[in-house]
Amino acid sequence: MPELRYNFVTGEWVIIATERAKRPEDFAPRDGRKTLPAHVPTCPFCPGNESQTPPELFRIPRRGALGPGGPVSDWQVRVVPNKFPALDAQAELSRKTEGLKRHVSGAGLHEVIIETPEHNRTLALLDEPEIELVVQAYYRRYEAITSDPRIAHATLFRNHGERAGTSLEHPHAQIVGTPIMPPQVRSRMENALRFYDETGECLNCSVLAQELHDRDRIVAQSEHFVAFVPYAALTPFHIWMFPLRHIASFLETGPEELADFARLLRQVLRKLYFGLEDPDYNLTLRAPPREASGLKYFHWYAGIIPRLTRTAGFELGSGMFINTTLPEQCAAFLRDTPANAPS
Amino acid sequence: MPELRYNFVTGEWVIIATERAKRPEDFAPRDGRKTLPAHVPTCPFCPGNESQTPPELFRIPRRGALGPGGPVSDWQVRVVPNKFPALDAQAELSRKTEGLKRHVSGAGLHEVIIETPEHNRTLALLDEPEIELVVQAYYRRYEAITSDPRIAHATLFRNHGERAGTSLEHPHAQIVGTPIMPPQVRSRMENALRFYDETGECLNCSVLAQELHDRDRIVAQSEHFVAFVPYAALTPFHIWMFPLRHIASFLETGPEELADFARLLRQVLRKLYFGLEDPDYNLTLRAPPREASGLKYFHWYAGIIPRLTRTAGFELGSGMFINTTLPEQCAAFLRDTPANAPS
Repeated sequence: MPELRYNFVTGEWVIIATERAKRPEDFAPRDGRKTLPAHVPTCPFCPGNESQTPPELFRIPRRGALGPGGPVSDWQVRVVPNKFPALDAQAELSRKTEGLKRHVSGAGLHEVIIETPEHNRTLALLDEPEIELVVQAYYRRYEAITSDPRIAHATLFRNHGERAGTSLEHPHAQIVGTPIMPPQVRSRMENALRFYDETGECLNCSVLAQELHDRDRIVAQSEHFVAFVPYAALTPFHIWMFPLRHIASFLETGPEELADFARLLRQVLRKLYFGLEDPDYNLTLRAPPREASGLKYFHWYAGIIPRLTRTAGFELGSGMFINTTLPEQCAAFLRDTPANAPS
Repeated sequence: MPELRYNFVTGEWVIIATERAKRPEDFAPRDGRKTLPAHVPTCPFCPGNESQTPPELFRIPRRGALGPGGPVSDWQVRVVPNKFPALDAQAELSRKTEGLKRHVSGAGLHEVIIETPEHNRTLALLDEPEIELVVQAYYRRYEAITSDPRIAHATLFRNHGERAGTSLEHPHAQIVGTPIMPPQVRSRMENALRFYDETGECLNCSVLAQELHDRDRIVAQSEHFVAFVPYAALTPFHIWMFPLRHIASFLETGPEELADFARLLRQVLRKLYFGLEDPDYNLTLRAPPREASGLKYFHWYAGIIPRLTRTAGFELGSGMFINTTLPEQCAAFLRDTPANAPS
């Protein structure tokens, strides 16, 4: 029997369409894991081509050769402005409303975080110390971008694979700082605020308590974080990662917590990589703006949406999703998938 | 300079990223128009295979052969339950909330409207009398589905092409009647209600007045409808079709108005078909539930979203869209594209 499930965090209903259900293992794509070279001479993000990007904003240095006999790189993580930015870093912020035409100037920041000098080492394939540096870079740039007075909100995301919308295969994330608060983010904050006013509890803390009690949707857990398939997951293998401690803003996360987040993220991405043969996915940070620090009602989290299905007219016309898997089955499959390469 | 534009109807901001801009004609895909046979013996929606669908719910009859020397069909439009329904037509409606798990039984209706007996005659290629029959069938099934007491809302949509999420190429639309009101639809009704309370005007009537005044985003106009690219279009060639008269519910549309809508829809789809080489698209009806009849603050409309770009992490993480074309340029391109086959 199909059922509808409500997501208290997003305020969305999802149809869990078990009549159309597939087994989790049916989602491993036929084309399997991508095999890429470690270095691509024409890739603007590969070492040696640093001059092809706009001037560097930030780097984490590195010493030594890449791979056996590979080229030398003097950086491990590199952050540059997006060469084709969605918003203009130089523009002044202005607003105008003329009848029903409301306009804000395209002032904003759009940066690319090049996560590794090695073309073929996607996040799931980095070592623990390497992915910790990547998450450090996320934090540092999120901090820098949200301190620009023109920026009302920053969206940090990564697109892995063509179905997830990437045009460059070299591993990278992006941050877009917008001069307005995205209405969807505000609406989730309002949900959380209403819940807090009604119950005196943080909504995400309550969701966490439910997940830790039920346990059947949990994928993996570390000292400071838990990864689970939400009760009303939008898509097959949709995953949320919540800090166990109540932390409103991403910027309030401590260095040890960040490193722990990086390691759990690696573990989850490896389960997807080995269990589902390197699926395309989007990773997003659901972090409220800077001034949210200390808020009792909000609690940041990260979301991973594997792009195994397509949104169609029903989703566009209703805003609802149809998920053809049972969240509990997806979680069990990922729990049972080792985070290490199959031997 | 990029800019952000606000959509009063949806409450969404969109980034119009002109730095990444493409010319409208750059969107005509390389693979061009699909060439399909008129009849496919293995297609469950082709004449002769009527027994492969669940029992028929509705038909508009036809007499005569299809194409020169083609098979005979005794129907022109046929409506059947979806063989793999997202919701269960037999289920009873029940609700349960247990902690933060809120559940509604998967009671609902999921129908397929087979729009023509001819496999290769997509909506844009039907004659005017044929597309009028299709829209009549939309109306009749929308009416039937929303009269089921378990149904809170019906979403009517059509997925054209693989990128729009279709799995069957034979021209068809779908209606899903859900036992809950989609939160996104409710949120747009709330927007419109707030606008009405503040101004005493229907929001969509006001948007129409703006479009008819500006004229530079209008694509085509008929006696009763206007098609335009919204000021804050989400994607390249995003199109809205509004009835010129204030009509809250789709079911209040008169027979002559429906026929006029069908003819304008055909004209718009032909402009896309010939101007952009048969792009994949989703068509949706933004129609509030049955009980909306007579509401002063709501006004139904149809939306067409060509699937020429992909949503990626930014869209998923913020709910905002990046549109790489100027709405005014897209509208001008479509205005200048004849609705007839190029000679």
